[in-house]
Amino acid sequence: MKIQLLVIGDELLTGQIVDMNTKWLANFLHENSLELERVQILPDKDFNLEVSFKKAIDEKYDITFVTGGLGPTKDDRTKVALAKAFGLKIVPNKESEKVAASNYLRAQRDWSLEKDAKHDNPYQFLPLEFRPINNPGGLAPGILYEKENQFICCAPGVPSEFQKMVSDEFFPELTTKLNFDKTKSEKIRIRTFGIPEEKIFYELCPTLWPDLEQFGKVSSLPRVFGVDIVVTIENTTNEKKNLLYKIINESLLLNHIWHIGEDELPELFLKKAQEKNLNFSFAESCTGGLLSSLITDISGSSSHFLGGMVTYINEAKVNLLGVQKSTLELVGAVSVETAEQMAIGSLKAYNSDMALSTSGIAGPSGGTKEKPVGTLSFGWAYRKNGEIISGADIQYFRGDRLKLKTRFAFCCLKKGLDIIEAF
Amino acid sequence: MKIQLLVIGDELLTGQIVDMNTKWLANFLHENSLELERVQILPDKDFNLEVSFKKAIDEKYDITFVTGGLGPTKDDRTKVALAKAFGLKIVPNKESEKVAASNYLRAQRDWSLEKDAKHDNPYQFLPLEFRPINNPGGLAPGILYEKENQFICCAPGVPSEFQKMVSDEFFPELTTKLNFDKTKSEKIRIRTFGIPEEKIFYELCPTLWPDLEQFGKVSSLPRVFGVDIVVTIENTTNEKKNLLYKIINESLLLNHIWHIGEDELPELFLKKAQEKNLNFSFAESCTGGLLSSLITDISGSSSHFLGGMVTYINEAKVNLLGVQKSTLELVGAVSVETAEQMAIGSLKAYNSDMALSTSGIAGPSGGTKEKPVGTLSFGWAYRKNGEIISGADIQYFRGDRLKLKTRFAFCCLKKGLDIIEAF
Repeated sequence: MKIQLLVIGDELLTGQIVDMNTKWLANFLHENSLELERVQILPDKDFNLEVSFKKAIDEKYDITFVTGGLGPTKDDRTKVALAKAFGLKIVPNKESEKVAASNYLRAQRDWSLEKDAKHDNPYQFLPLEFRPINNPGGLAPGILYEKENQFICCAPGVPSEFQKMVSDEFFPELTTKLNFDKTKSEKIRIRTFGIPEEKIFYELCPTLWPDLEQFGKVSSLPRVFGVDIVVTIENTTNEKKNLLYKIINESLLLNHIWHIGEDELPELFLKKAQEKNLNFSFAESCTGGLLSSLITDISGSSSHFLGGMVTYINEAKVNLLGVQKSTLELVGAVSVETAEQMAIGSLKAYNSDMALSTSGIAGPSGGTKEKPVGTLSFGWAYRKNGEIISGADIQYFRGDRLKLKTRFAFCCLKKGLDIIEAF
Repeated sequence: MKIQLLVIGDELLTGQIVDMNTKWLANFLHENSLELERVQILPDKDFNLEVSFKKAIDEKYDITFVTGGLGPTKDDRTKVALAKAFGLKIVPNKESEKVAASNYLRAQRDWSLEKDAKHDNPYQFLPLEFRPINNPGGLAPGILYEKENQFICCAPGVPSEFQKMVSDEFFPELTTKLNFDKTKSEKIRIRTFGIPEEKIFYELCPTLWPDLEQFGKVSSLPRVFGVDIVVTIENTTNEKKNLLYKIINESLLLNHIWHIGEDELPELFLKKAQEKNLNFSFAESCTGGLLSSLITDISGSSSHFLGGMVTYINEAKVNLLGVQKSTLELVGAVSVETAEQMAIGSLKAYNSDMALSTSGIAGPSGGTKEKPVGTLSFGWAYRKNGEIISGADIQYFRGDRLKLKTRFAFCCLKKGLDIIEAF
């Protein structure tokens, strides 16, 4: 099955936005055991689009997904270019009008007003031979072209609309029309931290790659917080998986692995806290609210997340978290002493079961020789048998301000995960 | 000048990561008055890469940037595929070894260990006729191929390495070798909120698009918080710009414009607070730390950002922010009354000049008929002539949890911007 994606929009080729549809579609197809062979990002230019649409058929792509260029404004060229590529006229289409009208109704807007407005690309017009497709999440109808069992499927560029249309409209139809190979494959994601990829594969575990490769394709993916090693097992069985886990458990990499699975660290942290029924709070200086925001991105986090304090200035550390003035004067805000007191302060302020804190230097300025940019002091405090147990540590990272904020937050959550698991 | 980018990596085509290099390169070229004509995302497969490298020359691309596949592991295919495409041998290269050795030195790592390690793609090997290029931000050397004034420029996939290598190494060399057309163009970005694009161009201001188009290319870009209208003025002059500003100022869109320029809302908010020397703090419920995190993403924010409290549970709203229990019982946490008290509480706790607060329903659960998912109550408080002035409002948004958190935060910052500007 040859599948490609065409992403259309000048805004992508002039650097105004990041394309989010490729990642989603790639992942969606991968989960359905299909491969995305190629992605092309193209400008809003009739000629370039026309060539690419013709090639989609000539180069024998079974499915070409297209995202973008279906809106009503002048810079939306998809329909025009499709018509040119296949020598078709753009004509009024009753079915497309019906789809647009029902989309407007759902959005509580008046279709009759829009219908008669002089849009440059009216929703109720389509190239002949093309079929309108329901758009459950937006206004513009999608369109489908079928030529001798090759399909061109066009959806708007807005990610939520594209995604819903592919999964709910195009994919069910394609599944019945094309004979998808249903080989069952499974991705095993081994998540590590604190070691670069060359060290993993050429120093610590020189036989790991070939050992893993016997199960299927191996990839090594450096992420902000560490390297993910992904093994795609074809025709997966429990026996194969157990053998793979055995290899991992016996490897020297084990100490560097924080998780095997798809959960990101904030999700995993929240899940484990929920499992052990521990509610928690934060006290953030250098992460500046990111810790809280990562947790509150997760639906349902309110069950165990009580809140957090961002104390950027020292006065707030003293007044709101009870950090001692003498500590700040003696050893400074970026110190294990301050971090520990911040965690205790947050534990008491929110009356939580566990609190984590960060105080460090995210840069680009503010570094010194003793405490360079990238220094993180982080603290923890929790209650056990009526007592408060607390501690703190210091670590050093590299990166720009945004990367450092993320690395700091992840380091802190990793420590929290260890505490929860030991509970 | 025909320029394309080839982005290489299975991790992109199986949906494991988002490509960030396209946006950066597109923007970089655009600022240098160059156009990125096409982007292709390709798998780690020798055959697919070989075909694309050959086409880069055959299709007469003056510059082909390549990102990814230069690492030391087995799944890094760029060098092998380049050698195959152009019928060249991969041989030891002294210059490449020198670059790698200096990169290791900079990273405080031992090159002599790596050099003799049995990497699958040793850094000190290159296809014949290719030239190694310094990598100021990483370990793997970049490579450059030149054939009759056509250039293939390969850099690693890690965004910081790719970006530094393009701007500091490839671009200066290309600028001297190719004769870039130095037409001066300028992007004017008009940032709106609270109105969808069809309403702007077909109802409120039906002549706006043609009026703007006389200055250059127009694009309409729906963003999370509103629509950006971007006009690219060719051969820009002050006269042209003033005429364009006049058209905008006289249009009905004016009430929906919050900024003309490249600053994102958090940057603009911080700048204006710095200009008026107002320090500020937050009290966040539904935005869960995002407000603080958006501000602390900006280097230098510590000059006027004092901190914020994330009070997810009601107890914290009462104990830490002084919200009255009776208010929570009578009208609930999502109400103008609670939001206003939260803002006053934050103003007092941090002794700030201005405080903003959010309390709303980010969903997906927790909505009711009266207060559906998407409801935001937001409050403000500031000091003027020794008095505390405060207020609150309620607004309704659509979207999933992450979009709503962002829309809530932006709505709140927009209100803050209005307050600062009226100071």
